Amino acid sequence: MVRWEPGTPERLQRAALELFATRGYEQTTATEIARSVGLTERTFFRHFTDKREVLFHGQHVLREAFLTGVESAPADASPIDVVACALRSASAFFTDERRPHSRTRQSVIDRNPALQERESHKLGSLAAAIAGSLRARGVDELSATLAAKTGMTVFGTAFTLWIGEGEERSLADIADEVLRKLLELVGRTSPAGS
Amino acid sequence: MVRWEPGTPERLQRAALELFATRGYEQTTATEIARSVGLTERTFFRHFTDKREVLFHGQHVLREAFLTGVESAPADASPIDVVACALRSASAFFTDERRPHSRTRQSVIDRNPALQERESHKLGSLAAAIAGSLRARGVDELSATLAAKTGMTVFGTAFTLWIGEGEERSLADIADEVLRKLLELVGRTSPAGS
Repeated sequence: MVRWEPGTPERLQRAALELFATRGYEQTTATEIARSVGLTERTFFRHFTDKREVLFHGQHVLREAFLTGVESAPADASPIDVVACALRSASAFFTDERRPHSRTRQSVIDRNPALQERESHKLGSLAAAIAGSLRARGVDELSATLAAKTGMTVFGTAFTLWIGEGEERSLADIADEVLRKLLELVGRTSPAGS
Repeated sequence: MVRWEPGTPERLQRAALELFATRGYEQTTATEIARSVGLTERTFFRHFTDKREVLFHGQHVLREAFLTGVESAPADASPIDVVACALRSASAFFTDERRPHSRTRQSVIDRNPALQERESHKLGSLAAAIAGSLRARGVDELSATLAAKTGMTVFGTAFTLWIGEGEERSLADIADEVLRKLLELVGRTSPAGS
């Protein structure tokens, strides 16, 4: 059996995460990341604009996973059901093997406000992409925006639980449960009330 | 009648917004902002860490408005009803006189990715504060997180509509309508389905 060899961006990403986690994000330079896997600074900058972007490599794959999920939903699915399909599709991206990586990445982000800002913005961009995809299905603008943002609320909340210490359930299962909880929470309200 | 004179931070904020909007955010320095209202760079930095923070001055007032709303909710209100109270309280902060300022501020933010990131993060921090306040009322952690994030979805969406060209309704009215739409959207779903 041939062992799978990761490509250069993945090698740089893995090395960066290791250095960010052990030495600190601020204290690590792009040159050090490249050198730690025997590559040059020039190679680093061929793949990433800066060291921050290493942590957001793969964002387009996640985006595609969400959008594929939207497209896979039945034509007559309600906006929230479409979002549920998107969540299931995106969850498949976060396999059990990926969980330790995701945990380390999050711990680096949690320690750096600029990275937290970038991460918040990433979730916002994903919501905008999903909303666009819902509008393309004929969903009105306000419903598309709200359904997409609600989807990202479920995703973000489920993700935080998924990387929790000792958590073993799959992200798909957690996301299902969180969405159910949200429906219950919102359904319990009397919109006309108070 | 005595004319109300704004304090130094407000004067700097107004001047900064004017310069950011006409000349561009990147092209404007803290020194230029200060000089445009006859103040020194030193005075600027006594009030703000950097020029970016000028755009986020008042964030703590908004946060207080949200939290006061949470506290004002009846003890037996459901988490979403508490969030509705928080939205109404926060909406009062955005008066009709404030709308042109909010429009200009948003147009500056929309043109600058780093500012967009900061703004996304601000909404995330507000959600975290509201969630904390809900937990203090005895709401379980997951419900508190979901209700607070849903509140920020409604707030962000309503705010975007409120600053829209020609929009004249109050933010409170728009937020009420957006929340109703969200309840309708989520209520329409069969959680057990698909």
